[in-house]
Amino acid sequence: MSIRAAVLSIGDELTLGQVAESNARWISQECLALGVRVVQHRTVDDDRDEIARGIVQLAAIAEVLVVTGGLGPTDDDLTREALAQAMGSKALIEDDRALEMLRARFESRGREMPQMNARQALRPTGAQCIDNPNGTAPGLMARIDQSTVYCLPGPPNEMRPMFHAVISPALQARVDAAERQSLRTCAIHSCGLAESVAAERIRAFMQRDANPLVGTTASGAVVTARIRASGTAAHDGRFEQVCDEIERAWSPYCFGRDLTTLAESLGQVLRDRGEHVVTAESCTAGGIAQFITTAAGSSGWFRGGWITYSNGLKHAMLGVPREMLHEHGAVSPQVACSMAVGAAERAGVRFAVSATGIAGPDGGTVGKPVGTVWIAVADLKERDAAHRARARCFRLSGDRETVRERSVRIAAQLVRFSAMGNPDIPVLWEVPFAIAGPT
Amino acid sequence: MSIRAAVLSIGDELTLGQVAESNARWISQECLALGVRVVQHRTVDDDRDEIARGIVQLAAIAEVLVVTGGLGPTDDDLTREALAQAMGSKALIEDDRALEMLRARFESRGREMPQMNARQALRPTGAQCIDNPNGTAPGLMARIDQSTVYCLPGPPNEMRPMFHAVISPALQARVDAAERQSLRTCAIHSCGLAESVAAERIRAFMQRDANPLVGTTASGAVVTARIRASGTAAHDGRFEQVCDEIERAWSPYCFGRDLTTLAESLGQVLRDRGEHVVTAESCTAGGIAQFITTAAGSSGWFRGGWITYSNGLKHAMLGVPREMLHEHGAVSPQVACSMAVGAAERAGVRFAVSATGIAGPDGGTVGKPVGTVWIAVADLKERDAAHRARARCFRLSGDRETVRERSVRIAAQLVRFSAMGNPDIPVLWEVPFAIAGPT
Repeated sequence: MSIRAAVLSIGDELTLGQVAESNARWISQECLALGVRVVQHRTVDDDRDEIARGIVQLAAIAEVLVVTGGLGPTDDDLTREALAQAMGSKALIEDDRALEMLRARFESRGREMPQMNARQALRPTGAQCIDNPNGTAPGLMARIDQSTVYCLPGPPNEMRPMFHAVISPALQARVDAAERQSLRTCAIHSCGLAESVAAERIRAFMQRDANPLVGTTASGAVVTARIRASGTAAHDGRFEQVCDEIERAWSPYCFGRDLTTLAESLGQVLRDRGEHVVTAESCTAGGIAQFITTAAGSSGWFRGGWITYSNGLKHAMLGVPREMLHEHGAVSPQVACSMAVGAAERAGVRFAVSATGIAGPDGGTVGKPVGTVWIAVADLKERDAAHRARARCFRLSGDRETVRERSVRIAAQLVRFSAMGNPDIPVLWEVPFAIAGPT
Repeated sequence: MSIRAAVLSIGDELTLGQVAESNARWISQECLALGVRVVQHRTVDDDRDEIARGIVQLAAIAEVLVVTGGLGPTDDDLTREALAQAMGSKALIEDDRALEMLRARFESRGREMPQMNARQALRPTGAQCIDNPNGTAPGLMARIDQSTVYCLPGPPNEMRPMFHAVISPALQARVDAAERQSLRTCAIHSCGLAESVAAERIRAFMQRDANPLVGTTASGAVVTARIRASGTAAHDGRFEQVCDEIERAWSPYCFGRDLTTLAESLGQVLRDRGEHVVTAESCTAGGIAQFITTAAGSSGWFRGGWITYSNGLKHAMLGVPREMLHEHGAVSPQVACSMAVGAAERAGVRFAVSATGIAGPDGGTVGKPVGTVWIAVADLKERDAAHRARARCFRLSGDRETVRERSVRIAAQLVRFSAMGNPDIPVLWEVPFAIAGPT
């Protein structure tokens, strides 16, 4: 790929770690979709010399540089000055059109423009302003040597539309179709396999220096294969072939490609079968329902759920017998199964998933340490009454949020397996325990 | 502050935007707590020359450089080679102790060490290895000019313990107590105020060049003031005074400092009053319950909730009258109030919060566009029966997840206001609509 890009983010709050930088990743994804490869992200302080140095160094290694932040109206917004310095100490002049638009923006809200904001209409001699329809800070565009430098405001809701309006078309015009095809990437996602096991299954494709090149990354319960092909391998069929074979190797754990989520994949399986699911949650406290309804259109296969944090509500809302709670405790296969069956029966749907466990930081015991979570799936069409619900025990590591997040994803995958007719597929982090039916 | 640090992160998956970089922010926070300021984050490709250039450039501006990633066993893990190059083309030699530990690690799992992994025991002449108790990649430590360079593996569960074991004590030894006190920062959080309104209320503290220096950032419904004092202002009382006055100016929207979350603050208010809350959710689908239970110990004030996505379940689970659903639609003040009252009554608790709206991307109409969300709080101790629940209408912008996320935070803040005895405080994004009681 011939065009290289870089991203420079500006702000003390970023280098101090008070706020997470999020623009660089978004810009990389947008560039990649246009066939432009981002080769460096850099974040610097609100310091004029450091910003100017960053602009000069990055303009030397990339044909396109996107700078975000430092365009506000206050004295610690220094991108305008730093750009002028990087361009060879150009003077800052007032841009008539930008000033006019700023004034109009304040007027339309019945306010006079504060004098401070006039700074935002300044630009280095030789640079151009970029309209900002969603905020007061105009962007800037300038040439430095062989590189085009774009400065955009930091807030994503201002930066992104400006990127799409100005930078995307400019990149598109520079990258011809053949170039755009010279790099292809694909992400293939699985849930429920350990990364080492997942990698072992696709070892044949993971040769170093291979093209397509395949690597894996793991995040929580999800393992992703990232496939990258360049040059002829991107369009001679090898790329698609490798993707297909990885999907096969990871079946049925594999749930989709690129932006497809586990929630969407679960929804597709349920929709295809005309079935619905409900949730009965204790330790995850709504997290399973919240997660599976991230899929648009989830009302077509998700009806609702119960959050039964207290034992009283487990009994009152889902009919879990008080004696069962007393005898086995809330974190038990019996209670998990009873919650799932109670939920499915009350909602009149085929599938229900329940979770009951100890997310921490307190509440663990020797027999049931923090991270112990029982997840049960009820399938009311199961003929064998002893198998109307199956509970599995997981021992999850990490803090409270990590335990809950992992529980949520495993629960969604277990429902997906049940809806696919494979309720007994082994899953990561399960601890050996007899699979128990409802008592 | 005299000691400066920088962070260099390595990996194609990061510059391509496939994976979010998360180590730099964590390292910045750890350094700041020790009185060391991080001045630059940089992310580069798996490219030996680029990594070496990054090491050299950053070692020139920072006394401490933390490099993460690129220490794996495969050919595209190039940090060892790049460090050797940055040190002046040193040779790579095998570290006996590191090799021994690697072998022992594989042996303890009953596996022979793959030949490939021997690469991980290589270090440049003059560098030292750092033990990695949680993975196969040892770290590296070397001096380049006035700078100490630490190379750690990328996975946070390996990197963080190594940072704590080696880098934290080294920094602590270099920074004396007076220096550690030379920078203090605090974040004060509010929910429900527009950023411009929030900033206006604390304008007196937001002078440029002021010390303490105050800035604001906004994320979703939360606006945060970031206070930073250096030198004498950090310990002569001014810092605390400014923090206190900002809290007062933002009361009652202000919910806490630094790591305190809105969920924890809500829990504190309920716990102080001995009250409980339950949830009744439609469009947020468990998100409110999930959010408020992120607070540890939430079982002390949260009992459970209902997720009623379908109208059938709104009626069956919460007793919302069928005629009401038919006449006003599910997204209406009447249904929101009925859901909240039904939930509080069924759970036998004082407070309930409900949300019903159109999160999108589909389902909007002219009268109820995507982003319309009714949120109601029921307070069963309210004497006036017409006010046992109050519903408010919000018009939220953004995609499905943004609409839901904002709804969740507003809902939590509205319960907090009710529990504090101030149910009518105006809140951001509310659209003018008569406050309606249950019919």
